[in-house]
Formats: sequence, C-alpha cells, structure tokens
Amino acid sequence: MPTIFFYGPKLEKDKKKELIKSFTESASRATGLPEQAFVIYLREADKEDVGVGGELLSEKIR
Amino acid sequence: MPTIFFYGPKLEKDKKKELIKSFTESASRATGLPEQAFVIYLREADKEDVGVGGELLSEKIR
Amino acid sequence: MPTIFFYGPKLEKDKKKELIKSFTESASRATGLPEQAFVIYLREADKEDVGVGGELLSEKIR
Amino acid sequence: MPTIFFYGPKLEKDKKKELIKSFTESASRATGLPEQAFVIYLREADKEDVGVGGELLSEKIR
Amino acid sequence: MPTIFFYGPKLEKDKKKELIKSFTESASRATGLPEQAFVIYLREADKEDVGVGGELLSEKIR
Amino acid sequence: MPTIFFYGPKLEKDKKKELIKSFTESASRATGLPEQAFVIYLREADKEDVGVGGELLSEKIR
Repeated sequence: MPTIFFYGPKLEKDKKKELIKSFTESASRATGLPEQAFVIYLREADKEDVGVGGELLSEKIR
Repeated sequence: MPTIFFYGPKLEKDKKKELIKSFTESASRATGLPEQAFVIYLREADKEDVGVGGELLSEKIR
Repeated sequence: MPTIFFYGPKLEKDKKKELIKSFTESASRATGLPEQAFVIYLREADKEDVGVGGELLSEKIR
Repeated sequence: MPTIFFYGPKLEKDKKKELIKSFTESASRATGLPEQAFVIYLREADKEDVGVGGELLSEKIR
Repeated sequence: MPTIFFYGPKLEKDKKKELIKSFTESASRATGLPEQAFVIYLREADKEDVGVGGELLSEKIR
Repeated sequence: MPTIFFYGPKLEKDKKKELIKSFTESASRATGLPEQAFVIYLREADKEDVGVGGELLSEKIR
C-alpha cells in the first residue's frame, strides 16, 4: 500500500520506467512512506476503447 | 471528470460507439455536466477471466 | 457480469435511479445481455479529491 | 454485487478456477451473501507494466 | 503486487480480518507468491450507491 | 484521458495539491499529452480497510 493505477496510451519501456520512478518519488514525498511501499499498475487503454465527449477517441484523433 | 468504466464482453465498433454515446448523454443529463467532461473506458473482460457464482464464466456458458 | 463504475459528483437519489436505469438499458441493448446481469457502482468523487489539468478541482470551480 | 478484482500475474486455467472458487467461498462466508451474488474479475498485470518500489517489476525479477 | 479489490457491503472488523486472511491464503496458494506480497482493499459500497438489474439495490432489498 | 487513481492514506490539502501537480507533470512529460488531459482521483484507503500480508494494516501499524 499505496497503489496507483495509470489508464492511458501504450508507452515505450523507457517512458514506463520514467513514469514509475517519478510517480513513486512524488508519492513517497507527499505521503512520507518509503518508496518500497508503492505498487503502480500501467493499464493500457487503446483509443478504440476510450470515449471522450461522447465519441470514440480513435475517431476524434485521426 | 467524471469517469466511467465498463467491464464486460468484447464489443463491435458500432456497439462501442453506441454505448459511449448513450452513457455520455445519460450521465450528462443526470449530472448537469457538459458531455465534453466525460471519459469512458471500455475494459474487455474475457469469459476465461471472469468468475460468477464461484465458477469460470466460460464454463457456465458453453 | 458486466460491471460499470461511475466516478463523479454526489447525486441526489432520483438522479442515481435515473442514471442506473439508463446505463443498464443502454448496456443491455449494446451487449444483448439481460438487464438483470448488470451491476453498477456509483463512486462519489469529492472535488477536494480530484485533480484536473494539474489542479485540485475544488480550486478550479469556486 | 459484491465484485472482486484480482490484479496479478497470468494464471493457468486450473489456478483461475481454484482462485475463483476459494474467493467466492470466503466472501460468501464473510458477508453471509449467496455465492451466486459474486462476480470476480481476474485482471492480468504483466511484469512489464507493473512498478514496485520505483522500478519495473520485470527488471526486479530477472 | 498482486492487489485485490473487494467492492461489497460494510463488514465488521472480525469479518474484515477473516476475509483478508482467507483471500491472501488462497491467492498465495494459486500464484505461488509469498503472502507478504498481497495488498487487499476493502471498498465499501452502500446499497444507496449500487444498481442491480437497473434498480437501486436499496430499493430491491427493503 | 488519461486517468490516474491513487489508493492511499488520507492527505492534507497541500499534499493533495503537491501530488496532483507532480503526477500531472510527470505523466504529461512521459506521454507527450497536454496537462489539461489528465484527471486524477485520490481514493482514500483507511488502515481499517486495507490488508497487507494477510493482516489488517491497522493492526500491523499500532
């Protein structure tokens, strides 16, 4: 505990590592809990499966 | 904000669009918030990875 | 199964009922599954606990 | 209702069935609700998409 | 990692402890991972905020 | 889109603002998406409702 979920686009490995590192550092600073306590789930959300403003994201971003 | 998650079977593209449109319209009406504010995630759940009443859904529905 | 989560503002009881009814009808139509199969969780998200564009929502909406 | 989510490694079919059965039995016992009421989602989380202690899990477990 | 979410009724403390213990034991057995690795979130869902079959659960269960 | 969920301890307002700001900056940098696109939900998890290693967190941390 704590646990963080990121629902967003597919990321390259280096960007995943960058995001996990910076999320963990920020969350550790804000909570005062050790970095070891944090689990982060990167949950890919394809534009074909996301709606924004009532439309499929894949159709809003050609 | 707000954000909606739909955990369910795989949908064809036209059904995804239908669901995103109707969810957004209903939620906008119920909250009074503009449709633009709504994000919807369609999270596919395969019958092989869902349990209902203690059994794998794939084994309940032959 | 399927299951729907709505993360959004506090709703009055009549609006909750309206949202649950319309979400269930739309989802049943889109999936072809009976309305009885659908579970919906309304998860209240207070403006003090939501960030949009890097700011607390409660500070964006005075 | 109730609904359980398991975010974890990929499981073989027999292990999925074992987990669904035991989760449902425990939850039914603890809540007093019939097993039929429980829906369980097994959400696979690949080591490439999970961070623990600020690092990618795939890089912590060679 | 892994992480389990339980969305359900309010539980007494002894039932929470029972559920956490049994979920952890089952999940450790099924995954082969040590019990220490498991985090479980009990997320209370009030009948006023849950829909089943298109109706508020609080109105289905008098 | 994207959307981030933080399940963790109750935070003071200044810490919430700090976490939202830093999460948004990191995620914008890693994805290349504008900060305006990000929604963050801070979901408080009380030690009475969290299990770690098979025990209630409130009983592990006196």
